[in-house]
This record gives sequence, structure tokens and C-alpha cells, in this order.
Amino acid sequence: MIAAVLGSGAWGTTFAQVLADAGCTVRLWGRNADVAQQITTEHVNGKYLPGVVLPESVSATTDAAAALDGVDLVVVAIPSQSARATLEPLRDLVPPTAVAVSLMKGVELSTDRRMSEVVAEALAIDASRVAVVSGPNLAGEIARRQPTATVVSSSDPQTAALVAKACSSGYFRPYTNADVVGVELCGAVKNVIALAVGMAQGRGFGYNTTATVITRGLAEISRLGLALGADAETFPGLAGMGDLMATCASPSSRNHTLGKHVGQGMTLDDAITATGGTAEGVKSCRSVLELARSVGVEMPITEAVVGVLHGGLPVDDIARGLLARPQRSEGVRGDA
Amino acid sequence: MIAAVLGSGAWGTTFAQVLADAGCTVRLWGRNADVAQQITTEHVNGKYLPGVVLPESVSATTDAAAALDGVDLVVVAIPSQSARATLEPLRDLVPPTAVAVSLMKGVELSTDRRMSEVVAEALAIDASRVAVVSGPNLAGEIARRQPTATVVSSSDPQTAALVAKACSSGYFRPYTNADVVGVELCGAVKNVIALAVGMAQGRGFGYNTTATVITRGLAEISRLGLALGADAETFPGLAGMGDLMATCASPSSRNHTLGKHVGQGMTLDDAITATGGTAEGVKSCRSVLELARSVGVEMPITEAVVGVLHGGLPVDDIARGLLARPQRSEGVRGDA
Repeated sequence: MIAAVLGSGAWGTTFAQVLADAGCTVRLWGRNADVAQQITTEHVNGKYLPGVVLPESVSATTDAAAALDGVDLVVVAIPSQSARATLEPLRDLVPPTAVAVSLMKGVELSTDRRMSEVVAEALAIDASRVAVVSGPNLAGEIARRQPTATVVSSSDPQTAALVAKACSSGYFRPYTNADVVGVELCGAVKNVIALAVGMAQGRGFGYNTTATVITRGLAEISRLGLALGADAETFPGLAGMGDLMATCASPSSRNHTLGKHVGQGMTLDDAITATGGTAEGVKSCRSVLELARSVGVEMPITEAVVGVLHGGLPVDDIARGLLARPQRSEGVRGDA
Repeated sequence: MIAAVLGSGAWGTTFAQVLADAGCTVRLWGRNADVAQQITTEHVNGKYLPGVVLPESVSATTDAAAALDGVDLVVVAIPSQSARATLEPLRDLVPPTAVAVSLMKGVELSTDRRMSEVVAEALAIDASRVAVVSGPNLAGEIARRQPTATVVSSSDPQTAALVAKACSSGYFRPYTNADVVGVELCGAVKNVIALAVGMAQGRGFGYNTTATVITRGLAEISRLGLALGADAETFPGLAGMGDLMATCASPSSRNHTLGKHVGQGMTLDDAITATGGTAEGVKSCRSVLELARSVGVEMPITEAVVGVLHGGLPVDDIARGLLARPQRSEGVRGDA
């Protein structure tokens, strides 16, 4: 199978390796000519994935027509907010039989569209030929071929099976899943929960509090998902709990790191500076809360994150959001 | 409310603090006269919970009749395998209206009974007056009053509500749950998954592999639970995912530590010595696998743990148990 990977950042480059190790011929496309040159000649992406030698079957180019010529798969790994503008000019270069794969997380803020919807619209591909890959997939560890699993989700089981086959190898195990809404919701809201976990840890709390914030955070994501028509089984799976757990454990997560700084007492502005830039969840937490309110779902942890970051509330409100509420039963179908 | 806590180890003593902070008068009962004396006079359990000052409303005694006189709650926090023998002689001292609470994990190996069943049988109390408390509840962090949540499970909603009220405080939030079978199954099987996570980490794998083992581990616990009549919502909750995550993160878990030693290449005997004793999951993994086979449920991670610890298989079989299998869909109701 021939695959084009659009985006030569850490995750795009790592997924190119995964596809190559699974037997595909892979063409990486990016705008940086030096990066493309180094990947093709030295099999190294020193800028975004230092220390990793890529398989021989991965090449790179800045020429989109060359990258997309005759491909079976188009994998998209570019920044979420610029995806539409980057993809639209490439639309006519994509073979009509190709399947598209989104590796992107979050939603397009200007339209509230999920990233697979953005890919389908921008490339004028039917949703049944688009899949999403999501799971506990920190790029650096996969690049070192440590074992992990992931979810390949598509509304069309044949599309999911084709993508799963294209990326399956001895260290990367895809599971298929038909719940695209649930999978993409997990990818978008996990950043808000990672902020809350960071705040709790910055405040000095340990493993119990971390596990409680993650578990109750997943419960509120699940409630929102069920209200939006997602499948309950997605949330405790690899794209939900799995990705959330890896994100909240990794020191390389910006959301987690920024949350820690806030938990230690920094203002949001200082925390953004200390983190070296803002984090996705800082922007998206308000959209998530609005969405939840519009469908009548309580999300106490998300509400506390919005309150602390944007409402001037003390960070101890994270703990209060968890604890200081009337006694309830645990189920996600019931209450908060 | 007056509560007796049977067992003055770390968890029993910590739960005595939780009950006292929630407004109960608490009498700890244990066999060690020095421990009891120190708790009553100095409000300290230097042997099992050093560095923590207990509330004034916690006293301790070695006299079971004095501890149990007129109590509303009997909380049991003694070693699982000796629970029945310890409780039976106390049966006639328990007031007929009292509710019993099990803080114990695992199953009684000689009978395969769950610990709440052992408590009900040994104290001759109806199952409707027995509750189980389980969640991400590492004793040391709770003793320092860090925020956490837990599940109080009973077949009788009134019993669960009564116990939840008795232990609810500003740092300890109980959620009620009616699925005693699921809650106790999670508490028993988590040790096997903690062994697998330890092995993967000892082998040098990072956050992705850890999150994958925990997520797929929870999926196989869920499959077993559904086959045994448990409720699917219990597994992604506090007693399932929450407890599993805290256990696998904590360096104080014996199962996790022993697994790490094995992952680093030690024999089981050497790992037991290095851990300072065996760990629950080493014994129970075979019973879990037998139970799974008897109801026709596949548990590839548990199978790999049994194979590595008791069948001489290489530790890389943990990764193989996760990855080298035919492609599947993700749902727990389907396949493995």
C-alpha cells in the first residue's frame, strides 16, 4: 500500500515509521525543505524527532502532487486550526479511491467541527472513507517501538479495517471502533482533564487525587458523549481512558504542565510563559462547557477548570468540584 | 454514629480517621496492646501509620466486647485469608442492628468467596446489611487528608447510603453503587494487572505501554465481570479504573514492585525476596484464569502473567499477549 503523510512533525513522522514497519511505502509531505531533504537522504528528522532512524521506505518531499500521486491512504497530521486551509488546495491531487486518516485532536474552533469532518469537507471525501486514529500514543515512545495499542475509528467498518491493516505491526496494535463521535470527543476533552490533573498535582496531591480526577473526568466526558450519541464503550477504551492516562502521566503534555504551574500558584499568563506557550485545553475548556450546558449535562471538573483559568477562582475549587457536592450514585447514565 | 474498626493496620487506622472526621465516634480493635495503648493515649499509630495524628474521637482497645458494644457500624480491615477465623468468635458481640463494612480486597482462597460474603457468613449478618468500600484509596495520602473519592457498594441502597453518610467528609467523597460483585471482582483482579504493568515497566516500557496494559486489562476484567453478572458501569468507575490506576502508579504496591523485578529479569523467587515477600496477585492469577476459563472468557494479559510467573515463559510474552493477536474490534461485549 502507498501512503502519503501530510505533516512532518513528531507524530506525522512517527506514524510514517509505523506505516513503513507495517509494510507500506510512505511519502511524507511538509513545507520545510530542509526537513524533507534530511528525511529522504539520511532517514532522520532531526528537527522534530531527533535520535530516530526511519525505515528506508519512508521518503519526504515538499511537492504535494508528488506525495499524493497514486496513494491508497492520505494521513493528515497538521495543526488542527490550520488543517482546512492547508488541505483545501490539495483536494484535486487526492486520488478518488483514497482513504483519509486524521491523526489530529481537538475541534476547529471557528466552526466547532470535529477534525474528521474538517478532513472530509476540505478534501471533498465522503465520511465513509475517513478514519480517525487515537489512543495512548506518545510519539517518542512509539518511535522507539515500545508496545502500544490504538483505536482506528470510522463510520464504515471496511475503512476502519483497511487502515488498521495498514498500520498493524509487532509493536503497534490497532483495534477497530465505529464510534467516531466518541473517539474525537475524547481527544478534544482530554486536554481539559489533563489541566485539572496538573492543577491537583501542582497543588501537592498524589496518586489518589490523580486517579479520582481522571476517573470522574472520564465519567463527565462519558455523560457528554452519551448526550451527543456516542457509544458508552468508547470512553473506558484506548481513545478515552488510555489516551487520558498516557497524557496525564507524560511530562511532555503541555496541558498537564500548564495545569501544574497554575496549581503551584502562578497566574494563567505566568503559567503560559513558563510552559512556553498556551495549551489547547485553555482555549477549548469554555467551548466544552458551553456544549455541555447546551445539552443539559453537568461537568463539574470542566466547570472548575474554566472557573480557575478564566473566572479568578482559587485552584482549590478543583478539589471542591470533585468533593463538595451532594451524595450521588456512581453511574454515568445517572447524575454527576 | 458509633463505629468499631476491626484491624489497626494502615488502612483500618486511616479509615478510623475518615469516620471520625465525618463525625463518628470510633473504636479501633486490634490484637497489639502497644498499638492500642498508643492510639488511645497519644492518638498516634507509630507502627502502621507513622507521622499521623488521629482525631480525639478515635480510641483503641484489644477488648472486642468493649469495641463492639452498641455500635452502629462494624468496619473490617484485617488480612483477607484470616478474616473468617478472626470474625467468627466475635459474632455474638455484634449488635443485631449493626451494618458491616468490608475494606478487604481479594477472595478467600480456600472457598473462592468474595470478602463481603466472608464477612456476612462469619458474623451471621444478612448480605443486605453488608457494604464494601473500594476506590483509589492509598492509605497514606488519605491520612494526610488529600482529596479522593470512593465507592460504597451494597445490594441494599439504604445500607450503601448509611455507610456513605458515615464516611463523607471534605476530603473523602463516597459514591454509592449497587454492584457488589463487580466492585469486589475489580479489587481482586487489579493485583494481576498491576503485576503485568510492573513487568512492562521493568522491561523498560513507558507511558503508552502502561496505559495500554491498564486499559486492555480493564477490558478483560470487564468481560469476566459481565459473564459473572456484574454491571458494565462499575469497571470504568472508581473501584475499577480508579483503584487500578492508583495501584499501578504507587511505588508502594507490592504487586507492581514484584512485577517490575520480574520485568528486569529476576526469577520469581528472587523477585519475592527483593520485594520482601510475595504479592497477592502471584497466588490469585491462576484462580482468576481458571474462573475465566470456566465461563469461557479470554483474558490474554492474565494468561501472560500466569505464563511468565508459573510457566517459565519470557517476560516479553506480556507484550505479545497485548499485541500479537488477530485484529479485533475494541468493545468489551465482543471479543478479546
